[in-house]
Amino acid sequence: MLDSLFRPKSVAVIGASTKELSIGNRVIRNLVDFGFKGPIFPINPKADEVRGIKAYKSILDAPDNIDVVHMVIPAKFVPMAVEDCGKKGVKNIIINSGGFSEIGPEGDEYEKAFLEKARQYNIRVLGPNCQGIINTDPDVRAYCNFTFTKPDTGHISIVALSGGVAEVIHQGFSAMGVGTRIYASNGNACDITIPEIIQYLGDDDGTRVIVTYVEGLRDPSTFMKVAREVASKKPILAMKAGRTMQGAKAAASHTGGLAKEDLATDLIFKKAGVLTFMDEGELIQAAAAFASQPIPKGNHVGIITNTGGPAVIATDILVGAGAEIPPLSQETETLLKDSLFPEASVNNPVDVLATGNAAHYRTCMDAMLSDDSFDALYINFVTPFFVDTDSIAKEIAAVNQQGRKPMVCNLMTDKKQWAETTKILMQAQVPTYALPGEAARAMTALVRYQDIRTRDIGEPMAFKDVDKNSVSEILTRGKNAELTFLPAEDVYAILRSYGIPSANWSMVKTAEQGVAAAENLGYPVVVKADAASIVHKSDMGGVAVNLKNAADVQKTIEEMQDRLKADDLRFLVQKYLPEGLEIILGAKAEPGLGHLIMFGMGGIYVEVLKDVVFNLTPVTSFEAQEMLDSIQLSPILKGVRGQKGIFRNGVTDIIQRLSQLVSDHPMIQELDLNPTLAFEDRVVVVDARISIQF
Amino acid sequence: MLDSLFRPKSVAVIGASTKELSIGNRVIRNLVDFGFKGPIFPINPKADEVRGIKAYKSILDAPDNIDVVHMVIPAKFVPMAVEDCGKKGVKNIIINSGGFSEIGPEGDEYEKAFLEKARQYNIRVLGPNCQGIINTDPDVRAYCNFTFTKPDTGHISIVALSGGVAEVIHQGFSAMGVGTRIYASNGNACDITIPEIIQYLGDDDGTRVIVTYVEGLRDPSTFMKVAREVASKKPILAMKAGRTMQGAKAAASHTGGLAKEDLATDLIFKKAGVLTFMDEGELIQAAAAFASQPIPKGNHVGIITNTGGPAVIATDILVGAGAEIPPLSQETETLLKDSLFPEASVNNPVDVLATGNAAHYRTCMDAMLSDDSFDALYINFVTPFFVDTDSIAKEIAAVNQQGRKPMVCNLMTDKKQWAETTKILMQAQVPTYALPGEAARAMTALVRYQDIRTRDIGEPMAFKDVDKNSVSEILTRGKNAELTFLPAEDVYAILRSYGIPSANWSMVKTAEQGVAAAENLGYPVVVKADAASIVHKSDMGGVAVNLKNAADVQKTIEEMQDRLKADDLRFLVQKYLPEGLEIILGAKAEPGLGHLIMFGMGGIYVEVLKDVVFNLTPVTSFEAQEMLDSIQLSPILKGVRGQKGIFRNGVTDIIQRLSQLVSDHPMIQELDLNPTLAFEDRVVVVDARISIQF
Repeated sequence: MLDSLFRPKSVAVIGASTKELSIGNRVIRNLVDFGFKGPIFPINPKADEVRGIKAYKSILDAPDNIDVVHMVIPAKFVPMAVEDCGKKGVKNIIINSGGFSEIGPEGDEYEKAFLEKARQYNIRVLGPNCQGIINTDPDVRAYCNFTFTKPDTGHISIVALSGGVAEVIHQGFSAMGVGTRIYASNGNACDITIPEIIQYLGDDDGTRVIVTYVEGLRDPSTFMKVAREVASKKPILAMKAGRTMQGAKAAASHTGGLAKEDLATDLIFKKAGVLTFMDEGELIQAAAAFASQPIPKGNHVGIITNTGGPAVIATDILVGAGAEIPPLSQETETLLKDSLFPEASVNNPVDVLATGNAAHYRTCMDAMLSDDSFDALYINFVTPFFVDTDSIAKEIAAVNQQGRKPMVCNLMTDKKQWAETTKILMQAQVPTYALPGEAARAMTALVRYQDIRTRDIGEPMAFKDVDKNSVSEILTRGKNAELTFLPAEDVYAILRSYGIPSANWSMVKTAEQGVAAAENLGYPVVVKADAASIVHKSDMGGVAVNLKNAADVQKTIEEMQDRLKADDLRFLVQKYLPEGLEIILGAKAEPGLGHLIMFGMGGIYVEVLKDVVFNLTPVTSFEAQEMLDSIQLSPILKGVRGQKGIFRNGVTDIIQRLSQLVSDHPMIQELDLNPTLAFEDRVVVVDARISIQF
Repeated sequence: MLDSLFRPKSVAVIGASTKELSIGNRVIRNLVDFGFKGPIFPINPKADEVRGIKAYKSILDAPDNIDVVHMVIPAKFVPMAVEDCGKKGVKNIIINSGGFSEIGPEGDEYEKAFLEKARQYNIRVLGPNCQGIINTDPDVRAYCNFTFTKPDTGHISIVALSGGVAEVIHQGFSAMGVGTRIYASNGNACDITIPEIIQYLGDDDGTRVIVTYVEGLRDPSTFMKVAREVASKKPILAMKAGRTMQGAKAAASHTGGLAKEDLATDLIFKKAGVLTFMDEGELIQAAAAFASQPIPKGNHVGIITNTGGPAVIATDILVGAGAEIPPLSQETETLLKDSLFPEASVNNPVDVLATGNAAHYRTCMDAMLSDDSFDALYINFVTPFFVDTDSIAKEIAAVNQQGRKPMVCNLMTDKKQWAETTKILMQAQVPTYALPGEAARAMTALVRYQDIRTRDIGEPMAFKDVDKNSVSEILTRGKNAELTFLPAEDVYAILRSYGIPSANWSMVKTAEQGVAAAENLGYPVVVKADAASIVHKSDMGGVAVNLKNAADVQKTIEEMQDRLKADDLRFLVQKYLPEGLEIILGAKAEPGLGHLIMFGMGGIYVEVLKDVVFNLTPVTSFEAQEMLDSIQLSPILKGVRGQKGIFRNGVTDIIQRLSQLVSDHPMIQELDLNPTLAFEDRVVVVDARISIQF
C-alpha cells in the first residue's frame, strides 16, 4: 500500500538547502506554503535551520517514524543515504535527483546500488529523476514536489512518468480553475510503477477520475490488468505520445529507451477500457467534466443556447462523435413554446435568444432533465449586458448541483467583466469551457465512457477440441532443430490440431507421388515447393496454381526440381480453390504481453488500403466480431449488391482458435494465414507460415 | 468602398436610449469607452442628452456628414428612418435591430422596404439583425457594436454573419492577449456581404490575417473570386459549421434557411486557397501566429525545449500534419555540443534541460535560425523556479523581433507567478500557447499556408476540338421535348462532340438490325434497352453483357421487346469490354457556382469505401491530377504488385473535357459516366446518362 507515500505524516529532506533557488529549499517551501499537516525535517550537515525550520545533521539524528524522505543530493551519494534511511526505518523515498539510468551505464550503477539497499530495508522509492507527489486532501496537504503549480482541492488525479507533460496537464486544470486530488510523477520509475499508482488511485475515494500520459508501457501486462480493474470503477483518461516514428525517437532520446513502433498501447487501452485521447487539451477538458458530473445513461444530448452559431458547432462535434441530438418530446415542446419568447427556437438545440432570462434557462433545463429523450445537457451561455447573467448562472449552478444528468457549459464571456457570473458557475463545479467545441468534446468523452463501462467483451472461449500436446511436440522438434520457420507439414499439422481448417493437402517428394496425391485430392490442384531454404515461395517460382491434370502436375514438379535444387525439397500438393474472398489472419508475439492477432482483407487491399485490424490475446468472441466490423471493407463481409457475404462465424472461430493457439504456445513468434479464402459457407486457409523463437 | 463604414468620422445612433441596459445606450457607451475619434450623435425624440452627450430629436436635426448611423428601433420604423437618413446624406447604416427576414414573411417585408429606400439614396447597410463593426486602428477607435469584448490593437480581422461565433473567436483572441484589427458581424447581410468585407480587409494594410466563420455561402461564386484574390495576398482562415446533417438543421433553424448537405464550401475553400479549420480553437491559435510571424519558406521545423515530453507531443503533431523535423546540420550540432550542458540532448528536438539558461536558449535559436535545415522554430519553455526565466523570455522576444523565421512558443507556466516572464513574450508578440499541441498546430497552419501560397493550380485547358453548337442543338431539342433524361443516342453524341471516348455503339430498333450492328462491331457485344420510360436499365433487366454470337443477340433483343413493351423502345448495341479497371466520372450542377466534377473508383468501391473525390468547375490539369491522387485506392491507378496501372492522362483528359462540357452547357443538370473502363493505354466510357434542367 502506498498510503504512507501519498498520505505522509512526516517528511524529511536530505539535501535541504539554505539557497532559495535550489530544489532542496523549494521542496520545503512548497510543503510549508501548501500547509502540510505534518512535521518537516530538513537534513543538512552544515545548517542549523532551513527556512526557519530546525535542521538535522543526518537523517539518523532526526525524529523517528518518517514516512517520506526527499533526496536532493548527487547520484553517487544516494546509495549511502538510502542505507541510512533504511537504518532509520523510513518508509518511502522520493529521489528528485537525476544522474541515474537516464544518463547511461554509469548512472545505472548508482540506480542498481540504491535499489538493492531500498529492497533490503523494505523502503519504497519514487523516481529517481522525478518531481514527486502532491496530495490536496485537506487532512494531508502534501506538496512533496519542486514544481510551482498550486492546485485547488478537487477530484482529478494525475500520474505520469514524464514530469513535463504531467505538469502541462496540471497547469491546464489550474488555468481552468478545476481542482486536483493526487499528482504523481515518477521519472525513471525504478520501484514504484505507474500501474501500482493507478491501483492506489482506484482505491482512493477522493479520486473520481484518473489522468495519465504515456510514451510507451514498461510492463504492459500489469498495466492492462490494473487498468481494466480500475477502469470498471472510475474513468481512466490516457494520452499516448510518440505515435509517429519521429515522435518515438524524440521520446527515446529523453527517456534513454529505444524508439520503436508501438501498436500495442492503444490496443491495451481499448481492451482495458481506458479512454484514449490524441490531444492533451481535450483530455484536460474531458477530465474536468468527469470530476463533477455523473456518467450519462446514454448518448442523447439536449442543447440549450442563447446564441445560434455556437450550438451549430456543438451539434457537429457531438453528432460526429456518435452522440445523438434527438427532438424534444411533445410535452417538452409544448411547455417551452408556452414559456419562452415567441421568437425562441423550440427545437433541439433550444435557442432561448440572447434576451432569454434565468427563468427561461431554468424552465428549459428542468423540462429537458425530466424528458426521457435526453441523457445529458449541453448549455451554451453568452453573457449579454442586457440580461441578469448572474441569475442565469445561479440557475445553472442550482440544477447542476442536483446531479440529475451530466451537464457541460460553454461560457462565452469576458471573465474580468463577468467575474461574478463566472465564479457562480465555477464554485458550483459546473464544467465550464471557453469554446463551444471544447465543451462539446468534453461531453462526447462522458458519452464514450458510458459506452466503455457498459460494454462487455466477454471471456475468451476455451476450445476443448484442440491437441495442445502434439503442437508442443512439433514446436519442441523445431526448437531442437534450431529452425526459424517450420516446414509446411508441421504448419498444417498445427492448424489441424487447433481446428483451423486448411485446404486438403499432401506432402510429396517426387512428381509421381505428386500426381497420385492430385488424383486423390481431385483437380484442379496447387503445387508449392517446400524446403528449409525457401521462405518466400512465390517470389522464387515455387508456387503453381490451377493445375488441371496429371501431365501439368508432373511437368510442374519436375521443372521446380530442376530449378530450385534443394536437398530437402518436397512439394505440397493442395486442392485449388478458385474463388472466395481473400482475407488475411495472423499473430505476432508482443514481448511481455502475449500476441497481437491480426485480421484484414487480403490481396491488394492489404497493400493499398492497409485494411487490417489488430487485437491482443486473448481475443473473445465479442472482440473477434468487432474486428470483422472494424475494417473499412467490412460491408463486403456481410455482402453488398445482393451478394450473400461470407461465413463470418467461420472467421471469428479461426480468430479465437488462433488466439488460443499462440497463447498456449508462446514460442510461436509469428504466424500468417495468408491467404485465407472465405466463402459463403466455409473458410479455408490456403497458405500458412509459422516462425518460432526460443 | 467601405472606408466610411470601417473608418467612420462620425456616428449617430437612432434609438439612443437613456436606459443603461439597452443596446441604444450600450453602443454609445462602447464608442466613448473605446475612445472613438469622431463625434457621436444620439438621436432620441424625448431626451436632451444620452450618457452626457447632446441628443437630437431626429437625424434630420443632427449635424451633417454622418458616416455611420446605428439603428436600434423596432423593425416597422426602420424603412422610414432609412428614408430620413437618405435625406440627410448618411453614408452607412448599421441595423442592430432584429425582426426582419430571419423571422419570416412579415419581417421580410420590412427588410425589402428599407432596402429599397437605402438603394434609392445610395446608403450601404450592414445587417439587419447584426452586431456591427469594430476598428481598433488608433486613428479610428470605432466600437460600433453592442458586444462587450474590448480588443487590443492588432492585425487579425474577423468577419462572420453569425455574431455568436464571431464573438467566441473574438473572446478567444482576447483571452490569449492577442489584439485584433477589424471586426464585422453582418447578421442577415441584406446589402453588404461577407465577400465585400473580405475584399476590403484584403486591401486594409493593418490586416495581416482574415478569420471567417460560415455555415454555408450565400453567393459562392463571388466568395470564390474574392477569396482567391485576397488569399494570394494574405492568409484567410475559415471554419465551416453545419457539417453534419443535424448541424445543418441547427444552422437553418437560426438563420431561417434550408438545411442541406454542402459539399461545395470545402471545395471552394480549397480552390480559393482558404485555410480551413474544423475546430474554432485551432483557428484562433493559428491566427495568433499569422498575426505576428512571417510565412515559413518550407516545412522543416526545429524544436527547442527544456523538458522532454511536450516536445514529443509537438513532434507527433507536426509530423502527423506533414511537417518535417530534420536533424541538425553538422555545424549546428558541433556548436550546440560545445555550448549546452553535457547532459543536454543535441538532436532535433534540442533539449537544453530544465537548468538551461538564457544563453543556452539564445545559442540554440541563433544556430537553428542560421541553419538552412530549418524553416521555422518551435520553442517549448517551462519556467522552473531555479533559472532566470525573464532572461530566457527576453532572448526569445529579441530573436522573435528579428523576424528571421517564424516562431511559436509553448509557455508552460503559472501566469500569475510568472507574470513578468509571460508579459515579456506577449509584448514582443511571440505567439504564446499554454499547451504543446496548441503551439504545434499553430505551426502546422503556417506550414499549410506556405503550401497554399506557393501552389499553382494553373489555368483550365480550353479544348478546341469540341463541337459546342451541336451539343447546344441536342440540348435544345431535349428541352423542347421537355425531357429530363436524354436518350442514349444523344448522350453518346454529346460525349463524342467533346472528345470523350465511349465504346463503339449502334442504336437499333429490331433484333435483325441488332445482329447486323453486332457483326459490324465484332463480338462480344452488350445490348442495352433504351426508352424514355427506362431510367435504371440494369434494374429492369434492360442490359445483357458478353453476347458472343448472332443467336444470342437475336434472342436477347426479342426477349427485351416482349418484356419491356415501350413504344419508343430501341436498343443500344455496344462493343463489350471484358476487362479494365472500373472507374466512375460525373458532374452535377451546383446552383450559383457551376458544377461539381466527380471522380472515383467504380464497382463496390463506390458503395463500400465511397472512394470518390470532387472538385469544382473549371477543373485544371493540376487539379485533375490531384483528384486521381486523392482517392484512397490511388496506388491502384499507378499499378501495384508489378501491374502497369492505367492510362492516367486519359482520365485527366476526360475530367477536363467534362468540366468544359458542363461549363459550356449549364443546362446539364447531372451527368454520369458510369462505368468507365480504364486500361493501360486507353479509357472508355461504357455507360452514360445525362439529365437536363431548364
